[in-house]
Amino acid sequence: MAYRIPESKYELIQSTLNNSEYKAKLTRILSEMSASELAFLMENSPPQERKIIWDLIQLDAEGEVLGELDESLREQLLFDMNPEEISLAISDLEADDLADILQSLPEKITNEVLSLMNSRDRGRVENVLDFSEETAGGLMNTDIITVRADNTIELVSRYLRFLKNIPQNTDDIYVVTKNDEYLGILPITKILTSEQNLTVREVMDTEFQPIFSSLNQIDVYNLFKNKDLFSAPVIDENNKLLGRITVDDIIDIAVDEVEQDFIGLTQIEDDIFASPKKTISSRLIWLSINLGTAIMASYAISFFTEILDQIIYAAVLMPIVASMGGIAATQTLGIYIRAEALRKLNNKSKTYLFKREFIVSIANAIFFSSAIFLITNFWFDNFQLSLAISGAMIINLIAAAIFGFLVPSLLRKFGYDPAISGGVVITTVTDILGFVSFLGIITILIT
Amino acid sequence: MAYRIPESKYELIQSTLNNSEYKAKLTRILSEMSASELAFLMENSPPQERKIIWDLIQLDAEGEVLGELDESLREQLLFDMNPEEISLAISDLEADDLADILQSLPEKITNEVLSLMNSRDRGRVENVLDFSEETAGGLMNTDIITVRADNTIELVSRYLRFLKNIPQNTDDIYVVTKNDEYLGILPITKILTSEQNLTVREVMDTEFQPIFSSLNQIDVYNLFKNKDLFSAPVIDENNKLLGRITVDDIIDIAVDEVEQDFIGLTQIEDDIFASPKKTISSRLIWLSINLGTAIMASYAISFFTEILDQIIYAAVLMPIVASMGGIAATQTLGIYIRAEALRKLNNKSKTYLFKREFIVSIANAIFFSSAIFLITNFWFDNFQLSLAISGAMIINLIAAAIFGFLVPSLLRKFGYDPAISGGVVITTVTDILGFVSFLGIITILIT
Repeated sequence: MAYRIPESKYELIQSTLNNSEYKAKLTRILSEMSASELAFLMENSPPQERKIIWDLIQLDAEGEVLGELDESLREQLLFDMNPEEISLAISDLEADDLADILQSLPEKITNEVLSLMNSRDRGRVENVLDFSEETAGGLMNTDIITVRADNTIELVSRYLRFLKNIPQNTDDIYVVTKNDEYLGILPITKILTSEQNLTVREVMDTEFQPIFSSLNQIDVYNLFKNKDLFSAPVIDENNKLLGRITVDDIIDIAVDEVEQDFIGLTQIEDDIFASPKKTISSRLIWLSINLGTAIMASYAISFFTEILDQIIYAAVLMPIVASMGGIAATQTLGIYIRAEALRKLNNKSKTYLFKREFIVSIANAIFFSSAIFLITNFWFDNFQLSLAISGAMIINLIAAAIFGFLVPSLLRKFGYDPAISGGVVITTVTDILGFVSFLGIITILIT
Repeated sequence: MAYRIPESKYELIQSTLNNSEYKAKLTRILSEMSASELAFLMENSPPQERKIIWDLIQLDAEGEVLGELDESLREQLLFDMNPEEISLAISDLEADDLADILQSLPEKITNEVLSLMNSRDRGRVENVLDFSEETAGGLMNTDIITVRADNTIELVSRYLRFLKNIPQNTDDIYVVTKNDEYLGILPITKILTSEQNLTVREVMDTEFQPIFSSLNQIDVYNLFKNKDLFSAPVIDENNKLLGRITVDDIIDIAVDEVEQDFIGLTQIEDDIFASPKKTISSRLIWLSINLGTAIMASYAISFFTEILDQIIYAAVLMPIVASMGGIAATQTLGIYIRAEALRKLNNKSKTYLFKREFIVSIANAIFFSSAIFLITNFWFDNFQLSLAISGAMIINLIAAAIFGFLVPSLLRKFGYDPAISGGVVITTVTDILGFVSFLGIITILIT
């Protein structure tokens, strides 16, 4: 169990769900939980329980829970709500969460929801809606405090005391010109520790690099991680201050990115606890594609029935080369995907990796072709068979490295995600090549 | 290219590396870069360039770079340094980074380095060294500011002004008894916005739950993510305040966890840019294990040479069932690993997932056994062959779901990581079962 919900509370909810008079009790328990606890509970419950829990959550709490949920589950829940419900539920959210939710709706519904919102909320969200979800602009919030450079620290202190409610997680306030152009940051701690009669200009930090609203979210994540930031200001291309990003908005960007690759490579669905129905349809697609490629491999084998008839041991050994090639290719593909996910690929490093994978494949080819030669010769005492499998091993292991690297590069070039389609393509190649090279070499050696 | 290093700077470094008179110029460029930029550069450079760059980094900057590096590269560099160099390099680090580095050294070297450090540094680090790297205690820093509850806010303000240097990323200070027992947090913003004559007791937040030093790091991450925290106090079991964790120390915990699973499943090495030599040895191990399992599968086939001799088309179709089972089992394993990585597995959800995977496998079995029956019958016009492959498909797809779930559970129970060994074990099972069930059923039907 994760920390998020104390074990006892979780068990209480579970036992209440199984109780016939649960409703009143469960409603009370749920109403005392925070939005993120509720989101966690929803994500980690099977579909039927999700439905019960969701129905019992108050409408005014639903928005915040939606804001905290994984994307796939959120979309599923939004799908069942009408525009009025949505606009009521989400009106209290922060601008970035609001925009995320609106962006996951069909455009028609988004416009309906927008028209139902009051003008203050609409204004807030339209600022953020202009930016893609994947950029700094889409991640930012507009709850910033700004001051002018020629004010004194004392005046700023009084202003903050007057505001009373400083937005959650404010560690810096921002210094701007009268046209809202960004000048620098003023850390809250500096306000406390500086002489009160100094001006903001004398105290502010102008070294801090603000983030452009167009910056990709992975780069935003890297920047935060790299510089140990809690928050950062976001500007447009004219240096105008637009908002700020806080670390809590970007904390799961990298894990989501890597998870997507993991999901792609294992060919599973986004939502771990998806219903059987949803799971069946997503798996069916993948397995069907794989059935197609397996049949292609069988078709390749069918050209060699004559030689198989002659040496039946070839059929026994046949899967080995294909399987080794598949593993080796997946290793190279894995390196490519991993390097790409966290943006570690550039021309220089690509060249290095390709060269290295090639060298590694030569070493593998030498080692495993020798090993399989000796094993086959010991097992079947047949020189030609041993030579054929050994030669096929060399071809397939080297091809595995080349295709394991070229296939994802090409897929990316043509706009496909190698993490999703790469595995199927390269194992098809190594399977077919494994069978054809082995059976082909025997045919040449024997006939 | 990632944001971390501007493209122009990166290219400058690359071109300088290829220049024969690079040394002076490169040293200057490197001396102007931050530790995290240097760490990023090191991680994303091939081994030879890494060595050149590392040699040119000043000793007093090396510590901070070590603190920022990925674990595997850090260990590699530390391996080549002697205890004196290490103690000099790391003396300026924060306690948690210091402890991380010391914990990655062999115990003998750790003790030597500790004995070479001055007593202040030693004291700082020994507090953290008592805790496992994987717990809140191992993540925390001791750079906290504490105040007493009966002081006035005004006194606290004056105290902070007197301190002048507030530790980086301080958003809260902590309220303790005279025995350092934790009472609550006092956000810096509260100090600014509260009446100055109130006492700390009247202003502090006592609702905030501190973190126990023994809490697992994934739970710490979930807690920060869940509650949008920037920092949190750490206490021991006697409620004594030990230190604090800031969000920058935990930001990559989840991505590391998921990455480890990805690395395990694709059977690749930790360090993307590892040298060919290192890569060869790590891949060799995996490929050897896979050669072993492929030979086991061939051995299983060898019992059926008689039937293969009779119906050579069985050899042609043989790989299909095994391959489909492998894919289906990897899907179920992927779900298990993903759920486990982010601690979404408990008894309840395990039961749900197992049931769902079982239901999905029945649906898959029905669909794909029918499909392959029709395809085989159309292709070879052989009823018995079609019936055999269709029956084998049912057996293998259902077995794939059962083993795809049970194997990782059992591996975990016996202390193995299913992300590392799970894939090999289940594909061995589905390969052998695929071949044996198909060839076995034909044998029964025909002889």
